[in-house]
Amino acid sequence: MTPVGTSVQRIDGLAKVTGQAAYTDDLLLPGMLHGRLLRSPHPHARIRHIETRRARALPGVRAVLTGADVPGTRYGTIPDEQGLASDKVRFVGDEVAAVAAVDPEAAAEALDLIAVEYEVLPPVLTPEEAMAEGAPLVHEDRPGNVSRVVRMHCGDVGQGLAEADQVFTHTFETQVVNHCPVEPHVVVAAWDAAGKLTVWSSTQTPFLMQRTLAEVLGLPLHRVRVVKPAVGGAFGGKREVLGLDFAAAVLARATGRPVKIVNDREEEFATTRQRHAMRITLTTGVRRDGTLVAKDCRVVMDNGAYNGRGPDILSSCPGYLTLLYRVPHVRFHGLLVYTNNPPGSAMRGFGNPQIRFADDSQMDIIAQALGLSPLEIRLRNARAAGDVTPNRGVLTSCALRETLEAAAARSGFAAKWRRLPRGRGIGMACGHHTCGFKSLMPHDASSAAVRINEDGTVHVASGGADVGQGLDTVLAQIAAAEIGVPLELVTMTTADTETTPFDLGSYGSRGTFIAGNAVRLAAAEAKRKLLAVAGDLLEADPADLETGGGRIWVRGSPGRAIPVAEAARAALHSARGEPVMGEAYYNPPSERLDRETGMGNVSPAYSFATQVAEVEVDEATGAVRVLRVTAGVDGGTPINPAGVEGQLEGSIVMGLGQALLEGFATRRGVILNPSMLEYKVPQASDAPHVETLIVNAADPGGPFGAKGVGEFALVPTLAAIANAIYDAVGVRITSLPSTPEKLMAALRETGRTGPR
Amino acid sequence: MTPVGTSVQRIDGLAKVTGQAAYTDDLLLPGMLHGRLLRSPHPHARIRHIETRRARALPGVRAVLTGADVPGTRYGTIPDEQGLASDKVRFVGDEVAAVAAVDPEAAAEALDLIAVEYEVLPPVLTPEEAMAEGAPLVHEDRPGNVSRVVRMHCGDVGQGLAEADQVFTHTFETQVVNHCPVEPHVVVAAWDAAGKLTVWSSTQTPFLMQRTLAEVLGLPLHRVRVVKPAVGGAFGGKREVLGLDFAAAVLARATGRPVKIVNDREEEFATTRQRHAMRITLTTGVRRDGTLVAKDCRVVMDNGAYNGRGPDILSSCPGYLTLLYRVPHVRFHGLLVYTNNPPGSAMRGFGNPQIRFADDSQMDIIAQALGLSPLEIRLRNARAAGDVTPNRGVLTSCALRETLEAAAARSGFAAKWRRLPRGRGIGMACGHHTCGFKSLMPHDASSAAVRINEDGTVHVASGGADVGQGLDTVLAQIAAAEIGVPLELVTMTTADTETTPFDLGSYGSRGTFIAGNAVRLAAAEAKRKLLAVAGDLLEADPADLETGGGRIWVRGSPGRAIPVAEAARAALHSARGEPVMGEAYYNPPSERLDRETGMGNVSPAYSFATQVAEVEVDEATGAVRVLRVTAGVDGGTPINPAGVEGQLEGSIVMGLGQALLEGFATRRGVILNPSMLEYKVPQASDAPHVETLIVNAADPGGPFGAKGVGEFALVPTLAAIANAIYDAVGVRITSLPSTPEKLMAALRETGRTGPR
Repeated sequence: MTPVGTSVQRIDGLAKVTGQAAYTDDLLLPGMLHGRLLRSPHPHARIRHIETRRARALPGVRAVLTGADVPGTRYGTIPDEQGLASDKVRFVGDEVAAVAAVDPEAAAEALDLIAVEYEVLPPVLTPEEAMAEGAPLVHEDRPGNVSRVVRMHCGDVGQGLAEADQVFTHTFETQVVNHCPVEPHVVVAAWDAAGKLTVWSSTQTPFLMQRTLAEVLGLPLHRVRVVKPAVGGAFGGKREVLGLDFAAAVLARATGRPVKIVNDREEEFATTRQRHAMRITLTTGVRRDGTLVAKDCRVVMDNGAYNGRGPDILSSCPGYLTLLYRVPHVRFHGLLVYTNNPPGSAMRGFGNPQIRFADDSQMDIIAQALGLSPLEIRLRNARAAGDVTPNRGVLTSCALRETLEAAAARSGFAAKWRRLPRGRGIGMACGHHTCGFKSLMPHDASSAAVRINEDGTVHVASGGADVGQGLDTVLAQIAAAEIGVPLELVTMTTADTETTPFDLGSYGSRGTFIAGNAVRLAAAEAKRKLLAVAGDLLEADPADLETGGGRIWVRGSPGRAIPVAEAARAALHSARGEPVMGEAYYNPPSERLDRETGMGNVSPAYSFATQVAEVEVDEATGAVRVLRVTAGVDGGTPINPAGVEGQLEGSIVMGLGQALLEGFATRRGVILNPSMLEYKVPQASDAPHVETLIVNAADPGGPFGAKGVGEFALVPTLAAIANAIYDAVGVRITSLPSTPEKLMAALRETGRTGPR
Repeated sequence: MTPVGTSVQRIDGLAKVTGQAAYTDDLLLPGMLHGRLLRSPHPHARIRHIETRRARALPGVRAVLTGADVPGTRYGTIPDEQGLASDKVRFVGDEVAAVAAVDPEAAAEALDLIAVEYEVLPPVLTPEEAMAEGAPLVHEDRPGNVSRVVRMHCGDVGQGLAEADQVFTHTFETQVVNHCPVEPHVVVAAWDAAGKLTVWSSTQTPFLMQRTLAEVLGLPLHRVRVVKPAVGGAFGGKREVLGLDFAAAVLARATGRPVKIVNDREEEFATTRQRHAMRITLTTGVRRDGTLVAKDCRVVMDNGAYNGRGPDILSSCPGYLTLLYRVPHVRFHGLLVYTNNPPGSAMRGFGNPQIRFADDSQMDIIAQALGLSPLEIRLRNARAAGDVTPNRGVLTSCALRETLEAAAARSGFAAKWRRLPRGRGIGMACGHHTCGFKSLMPHDASSAAVRINEDGTVHVASGGADVGQGLDTVLAQIAAAEIGVPLELVTMTTADTETTPFDLGSYGSRGTFIAGNAVRLAAAEAKRKLLAVAGDLLEADPADLETGGGRIWVRGSPGRAIPVAEAARAALHSARGEPVMGEAYYNPPSERLDRETGMGNVSPAYSFATQVAEVEVDEATGAVRVLRVTAGVDGGTPINPAGVEGQLEGSIVMGLGQALLEGFATRRGVILNPSMLEYKVPQASDAPHVETLIVNAADPGGPFGAKGVGEFALVPTLAAIANAIYDAVGVRITSLPSTPEKLMAALRETGRTGPR
């Protein structure tokens, strides 16, 4: 059994199922205080005065801070956020003040005693309102409330559309959804006597959090340590540094005691960060045979009150439009518009699910118009390895075609499409995503250090952040495979800015590919030193040695072998005295995203997926049930196939939530359903049967051929379900979610009972 | 101000003086139990039966374990110890059973409920008894109760003594003393769900502890993590893995809960490890002019019940006899004898203070007989750089002569010796010690990893163990100096077997020299990468660049300069994406100790010191007061001069304790004074004025010329005080301590009132 390519139990699995794994909220430090944040009840208001005297006087309260007590340095992709609001509040939930008290109850009580005098300002609650002439400004220094404009034009779209046999234009809308991690945002901050800040956080980007905290608090990097305990889901939502993080740090400094802040579920829903709502207008020209000729896309994206990753999400949208299907002429025009809604930011797929919902829904509309099957039109346009997209995306590997064929065959698509009984439907869609994403920095680096102990056990230190996706297990497998020892001989230390090497964090599906390559290189360096010693022991050229199963042998002479432990012992436990260590970094050969145009090969490789969804629509109620999803998957050679399957199942259920169930009801900027009861996350009973067909297509640059699989499987789900609903009842949903109300209204309006 | 060679505040100083530094006993883990050990009341007995039922039934008790529950694997230099006694007890305090309970009180109560049926055996309580024909055996497999015999013979002692003008023979005795660290031994052990053991321990050798625990408990190394929190003094006594360490681990496994065990002061005095009592018979032949010709030394060393480091201490004694003064013919015969006394082991100086007490006391006797001054005879024989001793010691640097001259001059020795008023005396002695000690393993290695952050701050990971001596500060200074940044930009992570690179620990005065060289090499490697980038920025050959004060400049063109931060930023925070890291190991070119003969250059360098003590003897009471000690010191170029002074002051006070005050009263193997009230550790009011004269003599192999200074300054103290007492009242004390009772008896016996 080799340590990669075989399904293994998570190395942290036992700790998690037994409840031993320590999450941030499990931390109890001596003298620890509990913090809470006072938040704005207004979507837009000027802070006139904050009176904290009564709160301070409450027994058990140890500190009450406002924006005046927190450095006002703005931070963010395009800096517009502050630790606590100092002048204005810009959404309902914006952080106004922070309290630390001996228990959470006293802290909550103190919030009620803080009197904030607001000058209420008129809010802008839709991009249209925000862009209207003379609209109130969310940020005074952003005229027109536009945070970013992205314009890309490859080929000549005018000419392409003119040459097309048919041209289709549709507008699609996607809603705001929340990550809903099981674990909310939690932070514990403590200072030592020398003025060093340690933060334990449910972050997915500890090294970026370290840098943001250092910058805003005015500290050198070595005086800020960020440690990531076990994390219960992140999905992009734990990439931001939020008000609670700064508040905990500043409250801890003010009180001289550690401070913990835990978001309650209402705060988690209403005040963290969301997936952006998008309005996507897509004009596509095709030839009669289904070949795509031109695409013209206009996106308006509701930024909410602060940028977060919004600007880079918009900048990456043009790439999502060109990477999956061949199209020579493409134009993109996107606007990121500030409103007084809760801010959007990264969420699994980073804008890709929205674009793909539009594009792969329209593909089915076009196919129907041309008399092609959904499979035919996709196969006709599917990209393949070696392709270079108009905006410079390079497909080092691509088995999109094979995923289409596998998913179609296994699901019986040809036999079922348009042939299922009334109310039952089948639909397909494709998707892709990156393996890392070079945008924030001009690099996308990770580094690692590997040690081979003298008993043949191995220790790996990586900055990579396991947030529940199983990265630690994958990295351990990679180290085990590279050195040639069984997986159970590897332990990991990860995601601690002080004791592990630098890594940008878990986002952009970069962990396996980028942290994995860094671990592989570090393991290779340690192995090189090991084999130098083994060569002496075996009287062989180190270049002629092979390893596996904890042994080292001379190539072609398996009898001339020694255990890894013996070589490691001969290195350290000898006059040589050399601990067998290796360290390395990996920075992929990708290009930094051009933020104005979206041009650039932002990732060293791309993963591809096809999903076929089968649904049942209750025409009496409009309720949709997804019965099964068959997924064809090119995530490179899987390191841990069980982990790939887990990512598929989780992504599909998450996509199902956005397709059918989730969304916020709001009134004047106030979210009305910020609870697990009212915000309809899919439950176990909503989950379809998922079958995952892994197309084993090694990427030449991936560690052991692997690619990232954390996001790509959510990308096709929205359109696959929409296309299946159309197949079932002939209704084309272009605005998510496909709620029973919408479906019933559409069914009534069309008077149709099905496409056939 | 350069980061080395200037006195700096300890980097952990603030945390310690504010009480924030976390020692092992400060750890509180959820569900943690408290352990205690049941100890033998007999010096020698066979365990017939242990009845634990009543103890188990006591409310609050969670586990009661005996030797049958702990792996019986023997460990030690020459394996003779077990986690808990399984067959016999061999000293009063030997560990028989262990209890874990919800609080220390319940654990203590449970001990009283354990009934042990002993077959009491006759003990052997002195080496003479132990070596007598037919004596009871402490260990049945060690006939004659002799654990080690060391025989060394260089030159021809018979011929040397025959050629000498005069031959002197004296016998000296030194007593058992205890390390008395402010913090006793403390351990916390916890297992995770995956079967991994984490131990927090007041250890001075975390990596050796990890290996011993793994070996005895039958675990692979990566399933044992040892973390050293802040440690409140070690002095060699925290090098052993003791019963409490195994008991905590096994109790934690049995209960599924973390277990803490804290030695109380009585256990600390009576059951840890002690400095060995030695009986040293020294025959020395000299020429009329004071030149040493031959030395013949016989040592009988009371091992106590278990070996600990005893065998290696005896094996290193021949080296102590030859390294300080030139002597062509030397013979050594040493016996390490098991008794049923508490075991001895390493303590600051590792046998050297005992040998030096004998040798430097005899030097004064010889000088007096030859009509030489103590200074003259020492200068006549003092070694110098370049010397190679008969047993292969190599003096890469040696300013012994300069320390003699400096201490004599500053103390006014010539003017005071034999000329002080009645009851006042002055005496001198010399000493040396190693910088590392290659004995346990065939290497003496340390390794380190250094990272330069993009704001120019630096992080150092080292396995080196700061046990209160200031090692972390010294290592940070070395990294700062090598890279060329101010000290305050450096942080340290040290002494954690999981997150820091391998190091053998703090003993043999190895920290500064060996861990320091590893840190310097790792810093140099990081700097090499930094300068490669800086060379691009400055358009210069990296070989032409210099650094200092956080800047990098072209040699000879200080205007062509950039901050370190800029180069680090250009490495990581750029398309290059390279975190600036370096790792390295250092294994000194010393020789492994030959255990049978004591031959070998065990250390890469040696430190040298002269001490002049001035005492006042109250002839009415025999009380001795040490008024001042003037120390000439060759510890190489000091990294932190204040730290060197601190080591001197601590060593001298510790030596004063052994010289005048400390010692155990025992009856049939029972220590009668195991308390701070009755065991007379020097108090602040006993401390003399200490003046330290640092002779700045760089060692070519030391980091920035530094050598180890943790032990050498205790080595001369015993003899310096004894020689001063002789100068004051004409009484030669050859058996330590020089108590008032002994002095009064000697004064009465000689009838003399002074040497003049």
